[in-house]
Amino acid sequence: MAEEKKAKAVKAAKLADPIKASIDKATQEMIVRAQELGIDTVFDRAENMKPCNIGMQGICCKNCSMGPCRLPLPKGGIEGEDTRKSLCGATANTIAARNFIRMVAGGAAAHSDHGRCVAEVFLSVARKESKDYQIKDTDKLLSIAPYFDVAVTVEVDGEEVDRDIDEIALEVAEKAMNEWGKAEGELYYLKRAPEALYEKWKKQGVLPRNIDREIVEIMHRTHIGVDQDYKNLIKQGTRAAIADGWGGSMLATDLQDVLFGTPYPVQSEANLGVMKEDHVNLILHGHEPVLSEMVVAAAQTPEMVEYAKSKGAKGIQLSGICCTANEILQRHGIPTAATFLQQEMAIITGACDAMVVDIQCIMQNVANVANCFHTKLITTHPIARMEQENVIHIEFDEHHAMEDATKIVKLAIDNFENRRAEVMIPRHKNTQIAGFGVESVEYHLGGSFRGSYYTLNDNIINGRIRGIAGVVGCNNARTRHNEGHIEVVKELIKNDVIVLTTGCNGIACAMEGLLTPEAASVYCGPGLAEVCETVGIPPVLHLGSCVDNSRILLAAAEVVKAGGLGKDISDLPAAGSAPEWMSEKAISIGHYFVVSGVYTVFGYTLPTSGAPVFHDYLSKELENLYGGMWDLEVDPIKHAQKMIAHIDKKRKALGIDRARERVLMDMASRQALEA
Amino acid sequence: MAEEKKAKAVKAAKLADPIKASIDKATQEMIVRAQELGIDTVFDRAENMKPCNIGMQGICCKNCSMGPCRLPLPKGGIEGEDTRKSLCGATANTIAARNFIRMVAGGAAAHSDHGRCVAEVFLSVARKESKDYQIKDTDKLLSIAPYFDVAVTVEVDGEEVDRDIDEIALEVAEKAMNEWGKAEGELYYLKRAPEALYEKWKKQGVLPRNIDREIVEIMHRTHIGVDQDYKNLIKQGTRAAIADGWGGSMLATDLQDVLFGTPYPVQSEANLGVMKEDHVNLILHGHEPVLSEMVVAAAQTPEMVEYAKSKGAKGIQLSGICCTANEILQRHGIPTAATFLQQEMAIITGACDAMVVDIQCIMQNVANVANCFHTKLITTHPIARMEQENVIHIEFDEHHAMEDATKIVKLAIDNFENRRAEVMIPRHKNTQIAGFGVESVEYHLGGSFRGSYYTLNDNIINGRIRGIAGVVGCNNARTRHNEGHIEVVKELIKNDVIVLTTGCNGIACAMEGLLTPEAASVYCGPGLAEVCETVGIPPVLHLGSCVDNSRILLAAAEVVKAGGLGKDISDLPAAGSAPEWMSEKAISIGHYFVVSGVYTVFGYTLPTSGAPVFHDYLSKELENLYGGMWDLEVDPIKHAQKMIAHIDKKRKALGIDRARERVLMDMASRQALEA
Repeated sequence: MAEEKKAKAVKAAKLADPIKASIDKATQEMIVRAQELGIDTVFDRAENMKPCNIGMQGICCKNCSMGPCRLPLPKGGIEGEDTRKSLCGATANTIAARNFIRMVAGGAAAHSDHGRCVAEVFLSVARKESKDYQIKDTDKLLSIAPYFDVAVTVEVDGEEVDRDIDEIALEVAEKAMNEWGKAEGELYYLKRAPEALYEKWKKQGVLPRNIDREIVEIMHRTHIGVDQDYKNLIKQGTRAAIADGWGGSMLATDLQDVLFGTPYPVQSEANLGVMKEDHVNLILHGHEPVLSEMVVAAAQTPEMVEYAKSKGAKGIQLSGICCTANEILQRHGIPTAATFLQQEMAIITGACDAMVVDIQCIMQNVANVANCFHTKLITTHPIARMEQENVIHIEFDEHHAMEDATKIVKLAIDNFENRRAEVMIPRHKNTQIAGFGVESVEYHLGGSFRGSYYTLNDNIINGRIRGIAGVVGCNNARTRHNEGHIEVVKELIKNDVIVLTTGCNGIACAMEGLLTPEAASVYCGPGLAEVCETVGIPPVLHLGSCVDNSRILLAAAEVVKAGGLGKDISDLPAAGSAPEWMSEKAISIGHYFVVSGVYTVFGYTLPTSGAPVFHDYLSKELENLYGGMWDLEVDPIKHAQKMIAHIDKKRKALGIDRARERVLMDMASRQALEA
Repeated sequence: MAEEKKAKAVKAAKLADPIKASIDKATQEMIVRAQELGIDTVFDRAENMKPCNIGMQGICCKNCSMGPCRLPLPKGGIEGEDTRKSLCGATANTIAARNFIRMVAGGAAAHSDHGRCVAEVFLSVARKESKDYQIKDTDKLLSIAPYFDVAVTVEVDGEEVDRDIDEIALEVAEKAMNEWGKAEGELYYLKRAPEALYEKWKKQGVLPRNIDREIVEIMHRTHIGVDQDYKNLIKQGTRAAIADGWGGSMLATDLQDVLFGTPYPVQSEANLGVMKEDHVNLILHGHEPVLSEMVVAAAQTPEMVEYAKSKGAKGIQLSGICCTANEILQRHGIPTAATFLQQEMAIITGACDAMVVDIQCIMQNVANVANCFHTKLITTHPIARMEQENVIHIEFDEHHAMEDATKIVKLAIDNFENRRAEVMIPRHKNTQIAGFGVESVEYHLGGSFRGSYYTLNDNIINGRIRGIAGVVGCNNARTRHNEGHIEVVKELIKNDVIVLTTGCNGIACAMEGLLTPEAASVYCGPGLAEVCETVGIPPVLHLGSCVDNSRILLAAAEVVKAGGLGKDISDLPAAGSAPEWMSEKAISIGHYFVVSGVYTVFGYTLPTSGAPVFHDYLSKELENLYGGMWDLEVDPIKHAQKMIAHIDKKRKALGIDRARERVLMDMASRQALEA
């Protein structure tokens, strides 16, 4: 009888402990509320479903129907020869490498397909087919045109004159579109990498031919009975990852900047507390700014504001989730409502009148949660719909963009009066400065007469800034929400490492107040604090969405160009991190950072642990080929310390390790030394 | 103690029962030999590793690192609402649909990337960069040129004259290459489908834009948080599958025919017994004829034959495995050594001096087996290498094709004297007639003055031929080798259904002697037997490799064109089958058949059983959109009977069901009826 009771108790759904689930108070409050209302969230589901242990380790192959074949590690690990094999004979290395590069394929496809969508809108603008968009940043257009071999001037009567901007736009648009599928040649943007890096890629034979082909070739190579050499498999993963970082993602960023404007620092706020009870709350969630740009414009028209007022609201409060949040934050200062893991929470406030989603990282469960409230959930992209019947689909088309956007805003306003649950918006939010990029870093940390990144490089050389870290990536319900992000970043800036952030790490940092200049004096080591205070920047610079990781690549290339820190990205005192990664995009990003020369540490887990030889190849041998390598460290402090150790190794190789020692001395010891 | 012994016995590797593993005697003998020698084969591994039951059912999602999430069906099935969901909230339908279309992506990528490789060789030939290849079939080139909008004639002085063939080749080559990545438009070959089918695709919005893009978009849509509507997901699977069948595969077939010659019926043999103890045995295994064409040419030069004799061999015996076998069979009559499941066996004979592999369906374990013998295992393709150290890599390049091929042949010859194990070649083999295609079916079953497929159509209408079946696909170590293939095909021809075969089904039928005209009188019903005997063809027509399934599509389109059997492929009394499917390619093929209007039955399993709603969508609702649908039937006889039932349903719809009744009556009853 007691036994029976026990069995039943085990079977009943377990509720997540809010404190254990997240370090963020707003999230904790909403978890409690969800549980009170009997609504399950991702945190509860994480309690109730264990991940498949073999799949997690990368050693489950389901690429043919003789499988899925599972190759668990023997207890006590491998002794002697590893004789594990699947039905066809694939080894653990083959299987893990296949799975790993299929993740690269998924991630690169997501970023690049997003980029293609932007390129298509850009082409339609260049062809004057989309009246609602214009080219907002002609300087950016002129700055990228040469990379496509598009001339920006033309000789008329022996004189160089500026070419017509429409002509340039059309030519760039057509050439950009061809980057996805051109039959010959290689990607134009590869030449934006430092020459030494380009030569490494060339030597390894991994220069991407076009974006789609490299993804497709991954799918071919990982088909049963094709590539069965993990080194060769990862080579193709490398090609596709480069095609993402220096291709699809970089094109997405650049063309978005051309169309919607290059971001410059803006002030805003972050966390669920940005929602307003007495306003129409319209939340934009996903990854692509093409539609959200229009929704922002539509929501700010006097007609819509008046219409909202006519329905009893004080106005329209826009806010964002995931990278759509980052896009509209960096260009318009729209506040950020939530990270990936908080998306259900935004609806559970009871105040979300409409949530508009585009692509990527949208939990299918938001439809179920929306169904418990008055919230209208609107899918907008032809490639991302939902099964549930309560979801409204308003298909967005760039040819009548403003019309679609207005329809959506109106729908949110009309829904304001339908609120039925008590509104409970957590009061937590924080100020953030976001909108950094290659150009604004140059403005803040550049020099007027030497290299453009002169001040930054100078401060790295003199040791005030110990190094640069890119900390990026998702949240993951299998680790405590935001804990990894915040602890890693705090440990880095405490040790004078300046942090460049994107994606949900950027949102986490914003929620924690790390994206303010004031954070410098609170959290930073003395060197970094001094620099931030002098130039008035936060110690954590938010560079945007996940495609904007390409900004980090370009910033690193600019640092190399500015001189004094070696000839390649791999020479820089720099490291990368994704403490709470979750998506295939993160694997693609991680890999293009690694093969661009960056030591990159992931938190939580890596799907390679079941194949030790393959894991060692990624974490050790890749360094000999590209200068960067993978690492896994679950503990956030150790995670940051490993990055710092790598930074110090690079400082030493550059001969600037002693400079830093000088900076850290107090004035008296320094005078003693100098005397 | 007894318990302990038992436990140990359970842990020791189980050996496969040879009789249960295969219906083929040669295979059985080789399994016995392998077991005696202590070499494990795929049959033993299938005994020792169970497939993951959840993965098999399509309900394991490992597309992000919060998973793998597994959604097992509750015991007793779903009662009421299906509330299963993953961490993000993905339903069983979403997960199964994602997995299904990722299989399409893998399969379409494999076929199409193979096609691209051929297109690249063709382009280099058209540019006169590859001296070792020529255009062998200019008629075929001229017949496909118009589909690419390439003119075959030109006006000179007001007169139409033939264009220079080199010019045509270059233009076709460039346009073909662009099919993989063109930025705008749709695939050229879609217009080769019956107009009614094209219009269905257009209405559903599934016309492929280019080949790679559709595969990449699958990877994007199946990324976490993108497409979460199984109907929308399968739509993209449809687009990519069409891009395979009517795109990449069809281009592969056509360009191979142009370069290497369109196949016409040839006589040869099949099964391990084709190997010869006193000859150098060089086996070609994989899927791409680009290299093997050259190896065939090199091995037939007097120099190489002499060289073989100088090493004590009587000659060089070439043979093939998998679809490389089918390619060199249909164009050169080279005998077939083995199906997919027999690849290890070919080495276990002890007589395989070299096995040359290209791409797809090559078991990584052949390297281990080769290591137990003198066999040289040679990988040749840059995208398909092996981890094991005994594997030799000779990278093939079309620019010095003959040189590479000669090197390989020489290596095999040099290895003849190194044989160390006793040679044991099973004596089993059978005669086969292969090399059928759209053109030869027209020759054998066409009419001289009406539609080109007149005789075939006429015999279908008059009922001698009940219908057409395409029976294709792999072997699978989870089902008895060749049993499904042979029982399904025999049941079909017994019921007057003519069978078109490709791939490993073709090899299985060859091994069984079904690819001979003589098989008609032994196995066929009276109607089909009469037709086969009259025109002198086998009841099972071997159309080639797995990319040559496109020949079945075109043959079906020709049948529609010839008239009298409806306006679309879905009107035909026809059905498709893959009794022992295994690879992702099979799923892509199955799906393009379904959406081309063909009722398609798979054996063994379908990775949809864990998501009943999605399964029903594929097996029922798709018929309303495209006329074809999926089915699963494990029992071979029921499998064939379901196909026959569908054929009869179509005969009835066409109003030709009674014609068949007349044919089947004996003369007396017919006279009675007519009187």
